Amino acid sequence: MQPYDDQNIFARIIRGDIPAQRIYEDEATLVIMDAMPQCDGHALVLPKAASRNLLDIDPAALSATMATAQRIARAAMQAFAADGVNVMQFNESAAGQTVFHTHVHVIPRKAGVPLGQHARELAPPEVLARNAEAYRRVLGTQG
Amino acid sequence: MQPYDDQNIFARIIRGDIPAQRIYEDEATLVIMDAMPQCDGHALVLPKAASRNLLDIDPAALSATMATAQRIARAAMQAFAADGVNVMQFNESAAGQTVFHTHVHVIPRKAGVPLGQHARELAPPEVLARNAEAYRRVLGTQG
Repeated sequence: MQPYDDQNIFARIIRGDIPAQRIYEDEATLVIMDAMPQCDGHALVLPKAASRNLLDIDPAALSATMATAQRIARAAMQAFAADGVNVMQFNESAAGQTVFHTHVHVIPRKAGVPLGQHARELAPPEVLARNAEAYRRVLGTQG
Repeated sequence: MQPYDDQNIFARIIRGDIPAQRIYEDEATLVIMDAMPQCDGHALVLPKAASRNLLDIDPAALSATMATAQRIARAAMQAFAADGVNVMQFNESAAGQTVFHTHVHVIPRKAGVPLGQHARELAPPEVLARNAEAYRRVLGTQG
């Protein structure tokens, strides 16, 4: 496994060096909209502490990440009138990981609507902003 | 969301009412081989306590489940000489959930080998037994 590189895009978003649609934050985690979503409401839960993926993450950071993922999954059901939620977490390139800071995908699903491709194209900024606002309304958070 | 039904197949496996290839067990979790695997080494992490999925699971049970998922992901890398691991968790039918007891898929991946379809056909028992033994050797556990 490669060492952690703190210049990855999620580390830079966590530091505030580059912008993202932020929908939730606490001491240990940050949640943003996936800029290349597989569907409306595709969010990413990021532990703030440095780790590459599930293989090296600290147990406390993992626990906090999943507690936030649960909160976001519940919010997704309400914010997007979803029928279900996929939670996915990829480890290393062979598994589809493209950014090497641990992240958990939270993907609201509608019955009968197939999932789009992963990391295929950038969503229009106004779509991401609208979906982020839908989360924030349910979560009671600020952008 | 439907109520939890304790006659689901994973609840029956946890109670020991029906057999499975068991590869790891602790106070809060049980890990078995997926009988309809998407690849060699496809394992399922089950919290022992009753919950339907991420939307209703108790936070402590979720934390224990993910700690075990981390252990199994690391073991999968070694046991199957994997290049990566997918971790997936489905909530409700619209997201592909077919058994309504919380479970986390741990799926070892090889570079360049695409993933098979989910829950498509039963693996031969001897293949499941061999893969379970590969995990147990790495984990130091008994079947």
